[in-house]
Amino acid sequence: MNYPSRLVENAVAQIAKLPGIGNKTALRLVMHLLKQEENYTIQLAEALVQLRTQTSYCQQCHHISENALCSICADSTRDGSLLCIVEQPLDVLAIESTGQYKGLYHVLGGIISPIEGIGPDHLHIETLLHRVAQGEIKEVIFAISATMEGDTTAFYLSKKLKNFPVKITTLARGIPIGGQLEYADEITLGRSIMARTLYQSF
Amino acid sequence: MNYPSRLVENAVAQIAKLPGIGNKTALRLVMHLLKQEENYTIQLAEALVQLRTQTSYCQQCHHISENALCSICADSTRDGSLLCIVEQPLDVLAIESTGQYKGLYHVLGGIISPIEGIGPDHLHIETLLHRVAQGEIKEVIFAISATMEGDTTAFYLSKKLKNFPVKITTLARGIPIGGQLEYADEITLGRSIMARTLYQSF
Repeated sequence: MNYPSRLVENAVAQIAKLPGIGNKTALRLVMHLLKQEENYTIQLAEALVQLRTQTSYCQQCHHISENALCSICADSTRDGSLLCIVEQPLDVLAIESTGQYKGLYHVLGGIISPIEGIGPDHLHIETLLHRVAQGEIKEVIFAISATMEGDTTAFYLSKKLKNFPVKITTLARGIPIGGQLEYADEITLGRSIMARTLYQSF
Repeated sequence: MNYPSRLVENAVAQIAKLPGIGNKTALRLVMHLLKQEENYTIQLAEALVQLRTQTSYCQQCHHISENALCSICADSTRDGSLLCIVEQPLDVLAIESTGQYKGLYHVLGGIISPIEGIGPDHLHIETLLHRVAQGEIKEVIFAISATMEGDTTAFYLSKKLKNFPVKITTLARGIPIGGQLEYADEITLGRSIMARTLYQSF
């Protein structure tokens, strides 16, 4: 593509580094910005820089936070005996939006992935063990992706936690709500038959 | 959605103003930026601000340009008797990438749209008439969207140009290459029968 100016080319190159955005979408966004008020682009750029340079993390659970403790850890009405382990802050938001969980979280900051060179030392596992060692936590819930890397991470954590007097649970696996049987993969279907539960009518 | 911090909320709000990006995608982009090097976000923000504050336009055709004349207007090998009228800079790039056109362009900067409050006075029509009045241009090509607004704009321009000794042409309308007849709409199909051309084998 022959870009009309170096500025356009540079902006397209920077935007196209974002996930899910290719050169064509980046070019459309650039043209959109050029049509908008100058003020909008400046505000957008400031918001991005502030986000990246000033965001801080909860000292206890590593979730994104404005203060030393995030709003969840600081909330004394939450159940301190339940600890939900997630990969990233986005997962905390997803579980919070269900409204079904009132315990605390621990954000690992990633998942064990030898292919991407991420080992246990890159994750917030030391602080997790330190929290569990305090004795207040009675149940640790693995809310980790049902992938190879997720299973590896869960297995590693279960080994590390086995000497602590905590119950270890994991998210239920099965047919998603609204999912049709014919589209379910064999492993999910097989496991959901093995782990069948008592029928409850609503 | 309960955002974990004001910075995240602000960044999501700014990003979600972009076309085609909703709150959920904006949040994913925010999380991506937080995982990348600080440097990337700063470069991205700088590229956007530079783009918006320093981009200039060709004095002759209003295409995006670094100099007073864009690279197309400044290119003496191009055919100065052909003038292609387009809505926006993106259309110039699209036509240039076909490699089929060697004339000049004129970017209107929009299209007549009473619903959006865009009238002829908002478009670069005066400079277009001025260029045509110079006498060098022999043919004006309307490369404008085949929509209601596009047709209105073309009609308005044809009235304005009718006293000049120029041929006025428009992009061929018909079945797109690779298009199946059963999916073509009736108007396109009807017009492509009326405007049928001699068969040429390749």
